[in-house]
Amino acid sequence: MKQISLFFYLSLIVSALFAQVPQTLTLNKPDLSRGFPVMKALSLRSSASVFDEKKLSLQDLSDLLWAANGINRPDNGKRTAPSAMNSQDVDIYVCMPEGSYLYDAVKHALLLVSAGDHRALVAGRQENMAKAPVFLVLVSDISRFRGDDDSLKMIWAAVDVGTVSQNIALFCSGTGLETRPRASMDQEKLRQVLKGISKNPMLIYLFNC
Amino acid sequence: MKQISLFFYLSLIVSALFAQVPQTLTLNKPDLSRGFPVMKALSLRSSASVFDEKKLSLQDLSDLLWAANGINRPDNGKRTAPSAMNSQDVDIYVCMPEGSYLYDAVKHALLLVSAGDHRALVAGRQENMAKAPVFLVLVSDISRFRGDDDSLKMIWAAVDVGTVSQNIALFCSGTGLETRPRASMDQEKLRQVLKGISKNPMLIYLFNC
Repeated sequence: MKQISLFFYLSLIVSALFAQVPQTLTLNKPDLSRGFPVMKALSLRSSASVFDEKKLSLQDLSDLLWAANGINRPDNGKRTAPSAMNSQDVDIYVCMPEGSYLYDAVKHALLLVSAGDHRALVAGRQENMAKAPVFLVLVSDISRFRGDDDSLKMIWAAVDVGTVSQNIALFCSGTGLETRPRASMDQEKLRQVLKGISKNPMLIYLFNC
Repeated sequence: MKQISLFFYLSLIVSALFAQVPQTLTLNKPDLSRGFPVMKALSLRSSASVFDEKKLSLQDLSDLLWAANGINRPDNGKRTAPSAMNSQDVDIYVCMPEGSYLYDAVKHALLLVSAGDHRALVAGRQENMAKAPVFLVLVSDISRFRGDDDSLKMIWAAVDVGTVSQNIALFCSGTGLETRPRASMDQEKLRQVLKGISKNPMLIYLFNC
């Protein structure tokens, strides 16, 4: 009986949260004419240490995710970031105040993974950063690689995560956004929130405008 | 006596090679206004499979290396690519027909490491690529990281190599050059040629215009 009640209340809470948060957030078409020349973007590339709380516009968020690991050749589904043997192993989770989403590159949309604000889990000990409006969590799914050598797969995964992370950094420096790559976070709790991720390389980004 | 003769002939050969190849190749100042808008560079990012033999201009080579991992903030020596705890662990070796060089970011110059054409060692089994005019070999020196956890250091190194590699890819797609990241090569022989490198992550790039 206690178990049933508990389930009932939990369901209520979950329903209430989901009612306020869209299950799918359709992103805008990327603006392919946007940004500084690539050499200027490289000259401005830096890791920010101060972030304000201002929300990103839908266009900023759309362009950011497409730049990070979107499909830039719709005829063959290839991405802005290369990956080892085109395994497309890097998924991007987007933590915002209203909830955490998974970026679906094919649909160019965000799919709700977990309602609620999980940014503090990503910020970890750097509490001053927990109010940045968007955190991107890069996760490599090494099961998408062929072969049996797991330690080699971890190296491929880390190279691929670095690749996506620099797309993010240069998109930001090229469009006036602030970002910082980070690798420390509360991985254990994040795994509970971002369902389905396992012990794979993760890298964190945070943003503001 | 035989040993002395051998040493004599080897010295001659080395001297003859070095006489034809500059010990230091001073690079041009980077052109910071160059390239397509960053979103267009991302839209054109792809891995080429065909390369011609045309030599890169000095400006292309200069901008390419600065973009890859040059100093973009001379006041504090920070780079176009972030690195774990700003360890600046990624070195770039440049293999061209006349010799293999190390990129010195502080001097923005190439320092001769080994005269002669070592491109076939980098191309490995992909012999059709061996005539691409420039190969960049990215090598992380994990001794620059603090701490004792070598397997963690290898992950950081791979993330940092991926970061530099995407700088290269976006510089190329943003300026009309062709490139392809590769990870397979004759590492054992390359280690003999590129003195001082150890068993650290390596990633290869090749270019043409």
